[in-house]
Amino acid sequence: MAMRRAGVSAIRALCSSPNSTRHVHSTAGSKKIVGVFYKANEYAELNPNFVGTVERGLGIRDWLESQGHQYVVTDDKEGPDCELEKHLSDLHVLITTPFHPAYVTAERIKKAKNLQLLLTAGIGSDHIDLKAAAEAGLTVAEVTGSNVVSVAEDELMRILILVRNFLPGYHQVINGEWNVAGIAHRAYDLEGKTVGTVGAGRIGRLLLQRLKPFNCHLLYHDRIKIDPQLENETGAKFEEDLDAMLPKCDIIVLNMPLTEKTRGMLDKERISKLKKGVLIVNNARGALVDTQAVADACASGHIGGYSGDVWFPQPAPKDHPWRYMPNQAMTPHISGTTIDAQLRYAAGTKDMLDRYFKGEEFPLQNYIVKEGVLAPQYR
Amino acid sequence: MAMRRAGVSAIRALCSSPNSTRHVHSTAGSKKIVGVFYKANEYAELNPNFVGTVERGLGIRDWLESQGHQYVVTDDKEGPDCELEKHLSDLHVLITTPFHPAYVTAERIKKAKNLQLLLTAGIGSDHIDLKAAAEAGLTVAEVTGSNVVSVAEDELMRILILVRNFLPGYHQVINGEWNVAGIAHRAYDLEGKTVGTVGAGRIGRLLLQRLKPFNCHLLYHDRIKIDPQLENETGAKFEEDLDAMLPKCDIIVLNMPLTEKTRGMLDKERISKLKKGVLIVNNARGALVDTQAVADACASGHIGGYSGDVWFPQPAPKDHPWRYMPNQAMTPHISGTTIDAQLRYAAGTKDMLDRYFKGEEFPLQNYIVKEGVLAPQYR
Repeated sequence: MAMRRAGVSAIRALCSSPNSTRHVHSTAGSKKIVGVFYKANEYAELNPNFVGTVERGLGIRDWLESQGHQYVVTDDKEGPDCELEKHLSDLHVLITTPFHPAYVTAERIKKAKNLQLLLTAGIGSDHIDLKAAAEAGLTVAEVTGSNVVSVAEDELMRILILVRNFLPGYHQVINGEWNVAGIAHRAYDLEGKTVGTVGAGRIGRLLLQRLKPFNCHLLYHDRIKIDPQLENETGAKFEEDLDAMLPKCDIIVLNMPLTEKTRGMLDKERISKLKKGVLIVNNARGALVDTQAVADACASGHIGGYSGDVWFPQPAPKDHPWRYMPNQAMTPHISGTTIDAQLRYAAGTKDMLDRYFKGEEFPLQNYIVKEGVLAPQYR
Repeated sequence: MAMRRAGVSAIRALCSSPNSTRHVHSTAGSKKIVGVFYKANEYAELNPNFVGTVERGLGIRDWLESQGHQYVVTDDKEGPDCELEKHLSDLHVLITTPFHPAYVTAERIKKAKNLQLLLTAGIGSDHIDLKAAAEAGLTVAEVTGSNVVSVAEDELMRILILVRNFLPGYHQVINGEWNVAGIAHRAYDLEGKTVGTVGAGRIGRLLLQRLKPFNCHLLYHDRIKIDPQLENETGAKFEEDLDAMLPKCDIIVLNMPLTEKTRGMLDKERISKLKKGVLIVNNARGALVDTQAVADACASGHIGGYSGDVWFPQPAPKDHPWRYMPNQAMTPHISGTTIDAQLRYAAGTKDMLDRYFKGEEFPLQNYIVKEGVLAPQYR
């Protein structure tokens, strides 16, 4: 993995010199693999491709067992008596997903003496204590790219749902009402509006491409500029200073990973400087924003609409304020787990397991922590 | 207006030889203009640009009255005692909208002895009996192009809402639930799916352009092929035979006007030949489809999702079956009446009134009926 060692941080200092590196590539013999997924329950039989579930376990059980490995699958991930805890002491590989995240804490990593490899079926490994994983010399990898199209499409849907004020119209329909004015007084075209993405990695770039024909003013902020060709193709303008970009935007989309640097980046103060009525889409991570500050700004109208599928923690508790704030268009964590995405991240997970058994490298872009060394964007 | 007189039909035979042509261009003197719009009520003061309403009356009152014209605005359009009926006998111009349609029947046209001009603030004049208007020698015109972007954007939103199975997720949120499987088992990427538009006029073409970056298979059916450059740009394939195209589609979007030929075109038999689970978006007109056949196919699952903003009649009654069918993502008639669209169709209506007062021609593409002669696509 081409590691760009830029900047010194406490995390990096810890991570780049792990105290001990566990055997990251598989030694011969039977491995115990545990997967934590959401349950399909009554939906299991409705779709043969519904592979990202406890019932289907990514569709790799026969393949694993035919090679003599043990494969345990569960959705029971919370508390000291959960199924996951029972297997921590002897598992070698733990597969998790962002959609039903098993929080892999430092304590759990400590208990998992045989653990070598943490695989995220999907993208986004912030449910794992990456610092602790690095200190323990583990490898953490995800199926980079597996659901970026899925998420970008979903973001564009959410932008339109907010801009068009869709949900009040839908509520009228199911409540037997008809009041065009109640919708139209705050329904707009997307055309001509200023849309800024915070982060222009894989997902942000796909979003910009999909926004291009809508004739918006496109802005992006990132650590580095995107490819000049793509900048030219999309017409998106680079904004080096995040705080200069945000107040220009009618619509803001968050597209960066959750790290110690980005946690809570959209806080009360930053929100106060946004345009009144700004629309915000966040399919990245719930903890990027201050939960209560977002709820308060939706209540006051300073934020005109907030839509996303990420929360902290997940599942969101029944009393999470985002469930009840005005002008929200929230869903559970869903955008990256379409059927198409599941097939891709199941295939990508299987590919990495196969390489692990054979002692081969993973695709470089998949590594989040490689044998105890954290990828640069997480430092 | 360049009239292409192709094919003989009973309607054309009637329309091309009006019994009498009323004075279509204004004679000097004060005119009585009546506008029928939806009421803003408590929303009137929330947005200074909310012009397409009874309260704002397209923002043309001062302009009309300063020229000595009389301007009456109402939302009361149904039944023999409604406000509209009171003014039929002496109005010269009637302005209506598709969003809160005043049904201009043959009987009403007969009563309106002084009527010369019917203006649609928006696009779609099927709430007017065009045959009767033509026979009476009237002119019917709309603000062509005023909200085509608004509608095309809204269609793409609805495609995504259905493909991603958005609404069940939203319902979980507001009901305090969290069940990813209940959404994901039928959530897909748009990428790679086959999308067909029935009609590739102004709106259909804008939709194809906006769909282009999603990497779908794009099909279109129309009377005539689109510009080769646009076909090349979007990659959309022309399908001459509608019934050959429809069964290929994962997603069907209706984008044609309602005429005697297109009324009820999506009926029980055609639906039975569609792919199981097909998604349908209809922002064109409710009467293009068989209401009960759509509701039945949604109930059986043959239609996997139906979304649109058009109904028949409008407002939709409380017991309209589409309010209660599964997998619907309906709203009241809203897509063409964004604030941006209102500003455009208000300006376009004012422009035509100005030309009418001055005895000038309208922009050619605005005419639906010109001095008793129906535009070719309505024959």
